[in-house]
Amino acid sequence: MKIFERRNLIVNLKENINERVYIKGWVHRIRKLKTISFIIIKDRTGFVQCVVNSETIENLKLTLESVVEIEGIVKENANKLNNYEVEISSIKVINFAEENLPIQVNKTDLNEQLDTILNNRVLSFRNEKERAIFKIQNALSASFTKYLRENDFLEIHTPKIVKEGAEGGANVFKLNYFGEDAFLAQSPQFYKQMMVIAGFERVFEVGPVFRAESHSTNRHLNEYTSMDLEIGFVEDEYILMALETELLNYMFKYVFENCKTEIKLLNINLPKIEGKIPRMKLSEAIALYNKNNNQSISGDLTPEAEKYIGEYILKTTGSEFLFLTHYPQSKRPMYTMPEGELETRSFDLLFKGLEITTGGLRIHNLEQLKKQMGKKNLKIENYEMYLEAFKIGAPPHGGLAIGLERLTKQLIGFKNIRRTCLFPRDGQRLLP
Amino acid sequence: MKIFERRNLIVNLKENINERVYIKGWVHRIRKLKTISFIIIKDRTGFVQCVVNSETIENLKLTLESVVEIEGIVKENANKLNNYEVEISSIKVINFAEENLPIQVNKTDLNEQLDTILNNRVLSFRNEKERAIFKIQNALSASFTKYLRENDFLEIHTPKIVKEGAEGGANVFKLNYFGEDAFLAQSPQFYKQMMVIAGFERVFEVGPVFRAESHSTNRHLNEYTSMDLEIGFVEDEYILMALETELLNYMFKYVFENCKTEIKLLNINLPKIEGKIPRMKLSEAIALYNKNNNQSISGDLTPEAEKYIGEYILKTTGSEFLFLTHYPQSKRPMYTMPEGELETRSFDLLFKGLEITTGGLRIHNLEQLKKQMGKKNLKIENYEMYLEAFKIGAPPHGGLAIGLERLTKQLIGFKNIRRTCLFPRDGQRLLP
Repeated sequence: MKIFERRNLIVNLKENINERVYIKGWVHRIRKLKTISFIIIKDRTGFVQCVVNSETIENLKLTLESVVEIEGIVKENANKLNNYEVEISSIKVINFAEENLPIQVNKTDLNEQLDTILNNRVLSFRNEKERAIFKIQNALSASFTKYLRENDFLEIHTPKIVKEGAEGGANVFKLNYFGEDAFLAQSPQFYKQMMVIAGFERVFEVGPVFRAESHSTNRHLNEYTSMDLEIGFVEDEYILMALETELLNYMFKYVFENCKTEIKLLNINLPKIEGKIPRMKLSEAIALYNKNNNQSISGDLTPEAEKYIGEYILKTTGSEFLFLTHYPQSKRPMYTMPEGELETRSFDLLFKGLEITTGGLRIHNLEQLKKQMGKKNLKIENYEMYLEAFKIGAPPHGGLAIGLERLTKQLIGFKNIRRTCLFPRDGQRLLP
Repeated sequence: MKIFERRNLIVNLKENINERVYIKGWVHRIRKLKTISFIIIKDRTGFVQCVVNSETIENLKLTLESVVEIEGIVKENANKLNNYEVEISSIKVINFAEENLPIQVNKTDLNEQLDTILNNRVLSFRNEKERAIFKIQNALSASFTKYLRENDFLEIHTPKIVKEGAEGGANVFKLNYFGEDAFLAQSPQFYKQMMVIAGFERVFEVGPVFRAESHSTNRHLNEYTSMDLEIGFVEDEYILMALETELLNYMFKYVFENCKTEIKLLNINLPKIEGKIPRMKLSEAIALYNKNNNQSISGDLTPEAEKYIGEYILKTTGSEFLFLTHYPQSKRPMYTMPEGELETRSFDLLFKGLEITTGGLRIHNLEQLKKQMGKKNLKIENYEMYLEAFKIGAPPHGGLAIGLERLTKQLIGFKNIRRTCLFPRDGQRLLP
C-alpha cells in the first residue's frame, strides 16, 4: 500500500539520519529541563526521543497521550531508546488527551487491578505490553488459518443465530427472532460437520461462540473466539492428535518468527513440541491424581487435577502438553464416536495444566447417532436438520476446536483469561 | 500435512497411470451395462470414471451419493472426464445415502427453486457449482485478510454481545444477558474505532453482524459476514477510497490466480479496475437518475436508482464500480465526519449497481462528536464507553466495511444474496 506517504514510521527512522522526517503518534513521556525538553513519541511501530525547546511545550500545554504531528531532523545521539533522536522543528497537537488519565500507561507494566484495566480497556492498550498480548494472539489466529489454508481447508462462516445447535446443554443465550425462539450458537459443531458431509471435506472457522455459563472463573468467558476445524475421511482420532501437534508446532514457529519483540517484552518461553505429545487415558489421569493426592474424584478432572496432571507430565516427560484420551460417553456430547460401551474416541489437550482443545471422531452413521441420542434422552425432533445430513452419505470425520483466548493465556502465562480477550464478557461485564 | 497417507486424491490420479490407487469419495453417477458398469466418483478435488463388473454393483445395492472406498488400477482410457479411468478391484460402501434424495445433484446446474435448495442446503453442495460459489467466497475473505496483514493491519475479535453499540438504529436483536438487556452487534464499528484509538492504528475483522430488519429483499440478510477495516492517521476519505481500490484489485487478482476452475465453472468475468474508480456526489447521482427517468427521489438512492446509476457509469466509463460521495448527514451515523453543514466525508461503493461498501472518515474530536450526537437527538449517556475513548487522544481515522455475501453475489452475478450465504438467516429462515 503506497498511498500514505507523508509519514515516517518510527521503526524506520534509523534510515533517516540527518534527514527531515514527519512523525505522527502519541506523547508517551515528557521530561522538561530549563531550556530544552525531551518528549518520547510512540506510534504503532515503536518509540523515539525528540528534543524541543521547553517554551514550545509550555505554550502548547502538551499532555501525555495526546496525538501530535512532528516535523524534525533525525540526529545521531545515543539515548535509552535508540542511537538517534529527532530535533523537532515543528510540533502540532492534533487531539489533546485529558490530564490525569485513570491509568498511568507509560510504565513498563500495568500494576493496576484487573478490573481497573478492563474498565479502561482502550487506555490500557496504550501500554506496549498490553498491546503485545494481542499481537501474539493475532499471530496465533493468523498461523492457524495459514496452516489450514495450505492444507486445503476451506474457511466457512456459519450462523451464530440458530434454532437447533444446542448440543444438549442448557447454557445457551436465548433470543427472540421475529417472534420465534432462537439461540446463540455454543459452537459451530453441527455446521462444520454438515460442511464436511456436504463435500467440502476440510473446513475451518475462527469465530465467536457463546456460553451462558453463569459461574465466574479465571478460565471461562461467556463469549470467546473458537478456532474450529473439521476433516472428512479420517477414521482414527490419533490422526487428529497428530494434526493438532503439527498445527501447534507450525503456529509456535510462526509466532517465534513474527513476534520477536513481543516474545521478549512478555518474556515468553515458546514451547517446543518434539516428536509426539504424550497421551494418557482420562481414567489413568484420574487414578494418578487420586492416588498421589489422596483424593477421590471421578468422571472428569477438576481444574486442580488438570493442573496436577500438567505438572506431573512436565516433570516426567518434559512436555507442557498432554492429550487426555478415552473420555467417558457420559461426559461427551451425543455425536462423539463411542469406543466400547462406556468410552469414546475423543480427547482433550492440556497445555500447562489447562484444557485448550476438545476434539475427537464423530459418529457418521445415522442409526448409531440416533442410538446415542436415545441414551442421552435427546429428542430426535430437536435435531432434524442436523440428522438430515446423515441421510446423504456422511464420510467418517472428526475435528477439534482450540480456544484462542485460552491458548494465548497459557502461552503467555496469565492467571486470568480476561487478560487475553480484548473486551471480555462475563456475568458482571458487558462494557466496554 | 503428511499424515493422511493411504488415500489418492482424484486430482492427482493422472500421475498414477498403471498404478494401484485408493480412492475415497462419493458416488456421483452410475451407468449400468450388461456386464460392466461405469461409476463416477467425486472427492473434494474432482471426478473420475471407474469401471467395475455390474454384478458387484447389483450386490452392493449402491446408491448415488453414498460414501465409498475404492481400490483399483489407473488405466489410460479417454472418457468425458479424463484420459484415464480406474479399474476397480475392490469397492466398499462406507455409508449409504438414501435413495430418491430431494434434489438431483449430479446435474450441471441445480434448477430447483431457491427454497428447495436452501431447505436441502447440505445436499445442494454435493453439486460442484454450488460448492464453487463458496470457494470463490473463501478466496475473497482469504485475500482481504492477506492484503491487510501484509499492510500491518491487526486482526481483532470484538464482542458480538454488546450493551452500547446500537448505532442509533432500531434494528437490533435484543437478548437477556444474565438479567440485563443486551444486543447483538450490528457492526464492529465502535470497537474497531476504539482499537485504532488504543494505539493499534490499523485493525480489521471478518465476522458476523446482526441486523433485525424485518423486511425481506434479495439483497439483505439478518446475519451476514462483514469485512471491516479501520485505519488511523488518515485525514482524507479519498485515501480510504484509494485503499479500497487497491484492496479490491488485490482480491480479484487472488481469485483469478487461485480459482481458475471455479471461475470457468461459474462463468465469472472478473472485473478489472484500471486506475481510479469513478466518483460521483450522491446528489449528482440522484439528480441524474431523476432527470433521465422522470423521477423525483431525494435523500438517498432507491435500489432501482442504484441499478440505473450502475448501468450509467458502466456505459459512460466502462467501470463496474462507482464511489458515491458526500452523503448527507441525515443519512449517516453520528460518528461520520461532517463536511460543511449538510454533507459528510463518507462514501458508498456500488458494484454493478449494488452497494457493497460504506465507509468514510470518522469524527475524532470529542466535542464535535457530542455536537453531532445532539443533532441526532442521541443521548450521551447511552454511549459513555464509546465516548470515553475520545478523551485519551484519538487520531484522525476512518474505515470501511465490505459485505462478503454481497461482494460474492455481485461478482458471480446472482439475483438473490441467499445464494452466496452458506446458511442464510431471514425473517422466514432459521434452519438449517
